[in-house]
Amino acid sequence: MNLTLLTDFYELTMMQGYFKSYDRDGKVIFDFFYRTNPCDGSYSIAAGLEQVIDYINNLNFSPEDIQYLREQKIFEEDFLDYLSHFKFTGDIYSVPEGTVIFPNEPVMKIIAPIMEAQIIETGVLNIMNHQSLIATKASRVKWSAKDNIVLEFGLRRAQGPDAGIYGARAAVIGGCSGTSNVLAGKLFDVPVKGTHAHSWVMSYDDELTAFRTYANLYPDACLLLVDTYDTIRTGVPNAIKVFKELKEKGIKPKLYGIRLDSGDLAYLSKKARKMLDNAGFEDAVISASSDLDEYLIQDLKSQGAEITVWGVGTNLITSKDCPAFGGVYKLSAISKGDTFEPKIKVSENPEKITNPGNKKIYRVYDKDSGKIKADLIALDHEDIKETEPLLLFDPKATWKRMILKPGTFTLRELLIPIFIKGHCVYNSPKVMDIQKYCFTELESLWPETRRIINPQYVYVDLTTNLYNLKQEMIERFRETEI
Amino acid sequence: MNLTLLTDFYELTMMQGYFKSYDRDGKVIFDFFYRTNPCDGSYSIAAGLEQVIDYINNLNFSPEDIQYLREQKIFEEDFLDYLSHFKFTGDIYSVPEGTVIFPNEPVMKIIAPIMEAQIIETGVLNIMNHQSLIATKASRVKWSAKDNIVLEFGLRRAQGPDAGIYGARAAVIGGCSGTSNVLAGKLFDVPVKGTHAHSWVMSYDDELTAFRTYANLYPDACLLLVDTYDTIRTGVPNAIKVFKELKEKGIKPKLYGIRLDSGDLAYLSKKARKMLDNAGFEDAVISASSDLDEYLIQDLKSQGAEITVWGVGTNLITSKDCPAFGGVYKLSAISKGDTFEPKIKVSENPEKITNPGNKKIYRVYDKDSGKIKADLIALDHEDIKETEPLLLFDPKATWKRMILKPGTFTLRELLIPIFIKGHCVYNSPKVMDIQKYCFTELESLWPETRRIINPQYVYVDLTTNLYNLKQEMIERFRETEI
Repeated sequence: MNLTLLTDFYELTMMQGYFKSYDRDGKVIFDFFYRTNPCDGSYSIAAGLEQVIDYINNLNFSPEDIQYLREQKIFEEDFLDYLSHFKFTGDIYSVPEGTVIFPNEPVMKIIAPIMEAQIIETGVLNIMNHQSLIATKASRVKWSAKDNIVLEFGLRRAQGPDAGIYGARAAVIGGCSGTSNVLAGKLFDVPVKGTHAHSWVMSYDDELTAFRTYANLYPDACLLLVDTYDTIRTGVPNAIKVFKELKEKGIKPKLYGIRLDSGDLAYLSKKARKMLDNAGFEDAVISASSDLDEYLIQDLKSQGAEITVWGVGTNLITSKDCPAFGGVYKLSAISKGDTFEPKIKVSENPEKITNPGNKKIYRVYDKDSGKIKADLIALDHEDIKETEPLLLFDPKATWKRMILKPGTFTLRELLIPIFIKGHCVYNSPKVMDIQKYCFTELESLWPETRRIINPQYVYVDLTTNLYNLKQEMIERFRETEI
Repeated sequence: MNLTLLTDFYELTMMQGYFKSYDRDGKVIFDFFYRTNPCDGSYSIAAGLEQVIDYINNLNFSPEDIQYLREQKIFEEDFLDYLSHFKFTGDIYSVPEGTVIFPNEPVMKIIAPIMEAQIIETGVLNIMNHQSLIATKASRVKWSAKDNIVLEFGLRRAQGPDAGIYGARAAVIGGCSGTSNVLAGKLFDVPVKGTHAHSWVMSYDDELTAFRTYANLYPDACLLLVDTYDTIRTGVPNAIKVFKELKEKGIKPKLYGIRLDSGDLAYLSKKARKMLDNAGFEDAVISASSDLDEYLIQDLKSQGAEITVWGVGTNLITSKDCPAFGGVYKLSAISKGDTFEPKIKVSENPEKITNPGNKKIYRVYDKDSGKIKADLIALDHEDIKETEPLLLFDPKATWKRMILKPGTFTLRELLIPIFIKGHCVYNSPKVMDIQKYCFTELESLWPETRRIINPQYVYVDLTTNLYNLKQEMIERFRETEI
């Protein structure tokens, strides 16, 4: 589907306004950033860049699109003609997918003529907000599951086909080992997983026949769903019978075991573990899938649940306790001649005041541990060096400050060029490689920052220059009539 | 995108299992139903049927799909050959889109060979769960807004492109007058709405110039966003200046007014109303958009907020407080010779026990008021008549019973044929017509059933025959070893 019209109507009315009454070629800068981490966490994972690139490369108003807009009786022919030749010609900088990100830092920066920067707002937000949300949620679930396997099983409860497809992609980036979603598996070359449903068991006259039939067909990946009728009374005993039959035939499955999908997972998994062990099936896997999320997995593990594979559905694919990522897209500068004039959005609400100007992000690492000390937002022309003392201070409480000595820290610039003059200059890695990168990113967080409840926050500081610019602009605004 | 692989992997492993070891031509019946209404409501709205029809009509494993499956090294060539010729040949019955539905009734029924019925499970659930969720949420928001206008503004926070597109469709079905989503507007011929963003105001040297420029371009639909800097100090006064200028020029806008997007909407709207009225702009519209949902709108209206147009974003497009609709797809019968043998899924949890057999739904209306008295699930061969006394009883508390006298009630069968022998026999209405139908459906609910908090539930009863069948099957299960 051509997604060029995947935009809010006001982007088009504003565009026509700029077309009619504005410096069409003058460039502006928009920042994509967010203000609060999902699920009361202390970090997020950026995801969606590959789809943003596709979206921008494919921007193209078809004749039917133009005709549709004409029928709205609000757009004039010269503007429609402009749209029919529309192409994105700007620059985009972004953090790579899988990067750990924090509130208020510009994780994507768009520098383009105002009409071009405006039309892509909604599409960029839609894609980045969705995938960043699910990647973040998945990383939380994986954190709770520790070295266990987490699988994404949510397609049937996802908010439409794309939410299932790109949600599965993001879930793998954030830490899932695979997905049940076959189309996502094909599109992104990620492992697909799954065995059978209750209906399989109900289709046969009895559970044992259903299990036996399945095991004979798939002896190498034989996870039997044991809760169709009664997990302990019939399900696990029937599974054990079938595993014995395989053994007697000399078949040694690569992967075999049971799946629990209802009931008290702590009790049932411990009971089933004992039954399997007593029958000599110590290597049988116990997997579970039943309204799981990071909180429940952590709780089940603390109860000693004997589960090592977690199929997580609804609560991951919708990020149920926080189903929206609040990414925003805000104007930060407008070109005046050869330079950019910083712009600020003032608000009664201090958190909603934006950071003005053309900016970049430095990530500051503790040299010994490799862990993140803070992020530092700088103006683009500033050159922060590892060889000079680095002042960090909390922009909300400026008396909280420290000076890092050279040799104790390393710096990394986070924003990399994605589009230059409308041409994509970036190759997206494969999803499983993004996952690997994401795991190293997550390693750079202290465990106190990763924990599920009441985590320690990471500071996102401003350089002195940026801080002073922001204060001056706020003061100037307060003093003038608008 | 070809959605044929939009399915859980286990559907395919089960399919191959049936292909190898089962009566391939024997038919089965699956029911789509749900157990709990979203957001503690007492009803839901069915939506998504048109997309289910498209999905089923387009089911088709491409050579690349087949190759992808082959590479999974679990499917055999005879099965892959079967898939490469796959076509849905079954029957589907459904309630029309926009129908009010209740828990536990089969609102869609699939009668097909087992492999065909199994492969469509995930796609049907994905589509129906998503759109029914958002249509239901929209109907709640519209109920709170009473005769005010509700607009869908959530695309940037939707869970991916489809969630924005089909979410907008469902939101209109449930009660929104339009959407900001241009692509949804084009695809479904629904009104698109929107004016300008904060960035428009920030792009000009001052707010007044930005407003004036906008008003001159769009004098017929001039809703000015007044909170970029300071709503009461500058926003509303500048808007009033611009409205006066239009008036002086003799321009009488069709629609004009302001939009509030932050701050205390009760206070600001009342204050702005007075300022506009005092300036002679009694017909200026006050619209609002800021983390709205059905609870907040009801609360704002109870405070006397002077808002008549509500732009609802994140909380509607994600159904934030309940982002998943729990629709399930359960086997209810398997053909044995010429008849269907009923199947039941037993569970320790009484709510999870399914209703067995080939079923249909009667809606029972109170003849005088036209309001719904109850829904009655019957076996397909039963013929319930308006001319005979009708026994209704609560299947959970069978002593709660009543007999309706002929002449006091009317009956309507809810399930209508959509596919017969693989051919679609149903034409989907236009979305705005579905909305009209949905409004008449909602009128058939008592206000006590529609209210947002603690609504009265509607009974979904079983006929005596179905009730007895279910009890017998449960008893039989409890007495036998499986």
